Amino acid sequence: MLPLKLSEIAKLVGGTLVGDVDPELTGVAGLAEAGASDLSFLAETKRPVVAAESGAGGLLVGLQVVVDKPCIQVEDPYRAFALVLAGQQIAADRAFPPGVHSTAVIDPAADVSRATAVGPYCVVGAGTVLGTGTRLGSHVSIGCDVTVGADCVIHPQAVLREGCRLGDRVIVHACVVLGSDGFGYLPGPTGMQKVPQVGIVAVGDDVEFGAGVTVDRATTGRTVIGSGSKIDNQVQIAHNVQVGQHCALSAQVGIAGSCVIADGVIFGGQVGVGDHITIGAGTKLGGQSGVTNDLPAGSRVFGTPAQDAKESFRTTAATRRLPQLQATVRELKQTIAQLEGRLAAVEDTQS
Amino acid sequence: MLPLKLSEIAKLVGGTLVGDVDPELTGVAGLAEAGASDLSFLAETKRPVVAAESGAGGLLVGLQVVVDKPCIQVEDPYRAFALVLAGQQIAADRAFPPGVHSTAVIDPAADVSRATAVGPYCVVGAGTVLGTGTRLGSHVSIGCDVTVGADCVIHPQAVLREGCRLGDRVIVHACVVLGSDGFGYLPGPTGMQKVPQVGIVAVGDDVEFGAGVTVDRATTGRTVIGSGSKIDNQVQIAHNVQVGQHCALSAQVGIAGSCVIADGVIFGGQVGVGDHITIGAGTKLGGQSGVTNDLPAGSRVFGTPAQDAKESFRTTAATRRLPQLQATVRELKQTIAQLEGRLAAVEDTQS
Amino acid sequence: MLPLKLSEIAKLVGGTLVGDVDPELTGVAGLAEAGASDLSFLAETKRPVVAAESGAGGLLVGLQVVVDKPCIQVEDPYRAFALVLAGQQIAADRAFPPGVHSTAVIDPAADVSRATAVGPYCVVGAGTVLGTGTRLGSHVSIGCDVTVGADCVIHPQAVLREGCRLGDRVIVHACVVLGSDGFGYLPGPTGMQKVPQVGIVAVGDDVEFGAGVTVDRATTGRTVIGSGSKIDNQVQIAHNVQVGQHCALSAQVGIAGSCVIADGVIFGGQVGVGDHITIGAGTKLGGQSGVTNDLPAGSRVFGTPAQDAKESFRTTAATRRLPQLQATVRELKQTIAQLEGRLAAVEDTQS
Repeated sequence: MLPLKLSEIAKLVGGTLVGDVDPELTGVAGLAEAGASDLSFLAETKRPVVAAESGAGGLLVGLQVVVDKPCIQVEDPYRAFALVLAGQQIAADRAFPPGVHSTAVIDPAADVSRATAVGPYCVVGAGTVLGTGTRLGSHVSIGCDVTVGADCVIHPQAVLREGCRLGDRVIVHACVVLGSDGFGYLPGPTGMQKVPQVGIVAVGDDVEFGAGVTVDRATTGRTVIGSGSKIDNQVQIAHNVQVGQHCALSAQVGIAGSCVIADGVIFGGQVGVGDHITIGAGTKLGGQSGVTNDLPAGSRVFGTPAQDAKESFRTTAATRRLPQLQATVRELKQTIAQLEGRLAAVEDTQS
Repeated sequence: MLPLKLSEIAKLVGGTLVGDVDPELTGVAGLAEAGASDLSFLAETKRPVVAAESGAGGLLVGLQVVVDKPCIQVEDPYRAFALVLAGQQIAADRAFPPGVHSTAVIDPAADVSRATAVGPYCVVGAGTVLGTGTRLGSHVSIGCDVTVGADCVIHPQAVLREGCRLGDRVIVHACVVLGSDGFGYLPGPTGMQKVPQVGIVAVGDDVEFGAGVTVDRATTGRTVIGSGSKIDNQVQIAHNVQVGQHCALSAQVGIAGSCVIADGVIFGGQVGVGDHITIGAGTKLGGQSGVTNDLPAGSRVFGTPAQDAKESFRTTAATRRLPQLQATVRELKQTIAQLEGRLAAVEDTQS
Repeated sequence: MLPLKLSEIAKLVGGTLVGDVDPELTGVAGLAEAGASDLSFLAETKRPVVAAESGAGGLLVGLQVVVDKPCIQVEDPYRAFALVLAGQQIAADRAFPPGVHSTAVIDPAADVSRATAVGPYCVVGAGTVLGTGTRLGSHVSIGCDVTVGADCVIHPQAVLREGCRLGDRVIVHACVVLGSDGFGYLPGPTGMQKVPQVGIVAVGDDVEFGAGVTVDRATTGRTVIGSGSKIDNQVQIAHNVQVGQHCALSAQVGIAGSCVIADGVIFGGQVGVGDHITIGAGTKLGGQSGVTNDLPAGSRVFGTPAQDAKESFRTTAATRRLPQLQATVRELKQTIAQLEGRLAAVEDTQS
């Protein structure tokens, strides 16, 4: 989309150009990295004075914000910047050239006719249907009887195992595995015996799976990822987990079997949740928390085992003062011993 | 396999049909999700009254259990359910169509003649041998001189690097990497210098590797995974680790180099083990534990650094009472100061 | 390279053969596993007496070290051993057969002419250039406009997304994803709205990425991995992170967005770092640490939240003595109550 004059960008984002100059900008960058030909933005949380240190040739700023630089005043500068970024993305047709590549192995009983792109070396199994406008990168492996909705993007090397169902506008990054077997065994005389995993993974609309995410199929029924939920790289979701709508799971989170996560739950990175745990709506879990009990809606937790975040911070602070507390107790002990001696002397005198 | 009449299922699992009705069932489901046409089971740990809330059309229950529903009494209801599930799995011939796909690139010096299925776009290197009945999904990459035993299942996008050896009935899920280089470097004048990793990964029989697992080859010799061990998604096993037989490693566990894990060790999720650590047989490690010392057989540990689980729970409980303890110590200090004052007064009077 | 006589190995490593015998050795092994035909080495940290227990047919030992076995004295035995290992590696031409495989799908606008090997089923996009001597395994997926330097090794199933830039001698292990989208969203009326990620990943020289590593592209600009840094399996690096030179990141580390990691930082396994954090040069982070604040150069930290390692150990030790401390405080309380009673009695008598 770029190069654009600042006035053209103002029109694009519905903002107001401030000042007389109207530079042509050719790139986008963060405030610290931006050069004279770059557009950047001043986050609403940052003070206007920070803008002066940036080398940016033009800035998106808040409505009332005045800076000593060519700028566009706009209601939400980050959102406006995102709008400009959308025009900077590699063209979909370059990243995912349209058409079904001649090397793709499509089962005769699959229907990829409405898909926009099926990349080199994709393999699509019998009974599988791809929705309108969906694009597959190279080396995507889709098993039998999979349903992929409209306008989905499946990046290279992703694996969708048999029977899984994806809604519309789902983004699946590289090396994601959806529908691998759940980790279920029975003790047996010659070791653990595999419990067949015959369920599926069912994904709503507008879900994004980061690179290397794994989601296991249900033992029976469905492992569910609700619409609008966003899942960062290397997250692991076990069999029969139910993730609600509009949840955000940061990288390397692990959720054990049969957990129920309500809507709008926010996970910090590397959080672990034990099996069969229920987490109420809107809960926020601090990074690396280890959840061992159900959590009511609106919880804020931290630590392993996870506890109320404020209590956790208090406990941590108290723990760090422990050596002092020990010293205090030692002193008190001595003081008491001395008092005891003095008291005994007084008693002796009295008697 | 389904639909089946409940009486037919009773025969299949060696159980006893209770009651007069004999419904035909078409699906399998968990107790909470089951509908009128589904078979479910009542785990032996659950009270019979729970069965009443289920909509299941038929139940597998324990031998003495009486419920108000069509049911089959059987010694181990979950095991019987697993037996029914086995019949519900997608047919192996549909998931892994038999034969060597025409697109597979098989080195002339490889032997895949006894394998049942080699999927589209598999690549198999020189000197590699696949055992009888083994099936490969699509896009499996197997290096040179690899030995895969009989009746193994290798899912799409798995990578078996040169020289690795797998026993029989090994299951390798999607995006697993066996035999990547160990993380070994020497300090050098221009930075870390790579130590060549010339060993292999040796896997016993009946091992399962979850999606995204990585196991590094040994520097020299073998990284070993013992027979019957089950490894959940995204587990990382470093070079020269020895995992015993019948261990269970939950998701996202990480084991650093040269650890020795004895038989029957059970790892909770996200456990980390430092390098060169020995863990005794039958040890159980709570989720997110961080092991920094050797553990004797039969240990139960939790926390980072990992300690005896009971002590850890006591410590955690004590830690949470710390603010109270601090308050108590503050009060004692005041009380002692008062006592001291009173005692001084008494001494003054006496003298 | 082997079999070699011990005298020939001495020449190769620039060491001195000690003793009269000169056995021919056919393998390499660790001290504990080595047999009569194996070369092993005695690490300088180990006592010479340990060598006696080894079955090795020949040993590399330090300059002044005397052992009761055929041996070579050399300045740095492990480095010498690594030199011998280099000769034991599978020949590059066997692991990565030279030439562009006939099945590789190379865009006409890509330049792979200087690469040594492009394996079966590789896909290389328009505008991408591979450097001299670079080798790709099977199923490597490289997007548009990617630059890969000279003498790089890219293992099977790796994914390099559009626009990424790699220096020379970079090693990318299987199932690595470089350039996946960063995890960035704006709150919106219908849920989280994706912020386009238009930056790249820029990698220096001599970097190694372990199996399953994921590195997200920057929102704008570059996610940077500095020259000489080594990244173990399953590490996750978020968008806009800057990793310095010669850092070592152990397995399963996760670094959140926009962190700045200076040179020579050493991460233990499973460490997590929150977003926008700066870590000073030469810092060492203990396994499983969770970093929530900036760290000055040379820090040594441990725990979650991460604190100074020595303080952390002291705190942990104090915490484990907490039950005793509680008991002590209880006793003091009783003692004080008794003292109070006795003092009151004394006061009564006096008044």
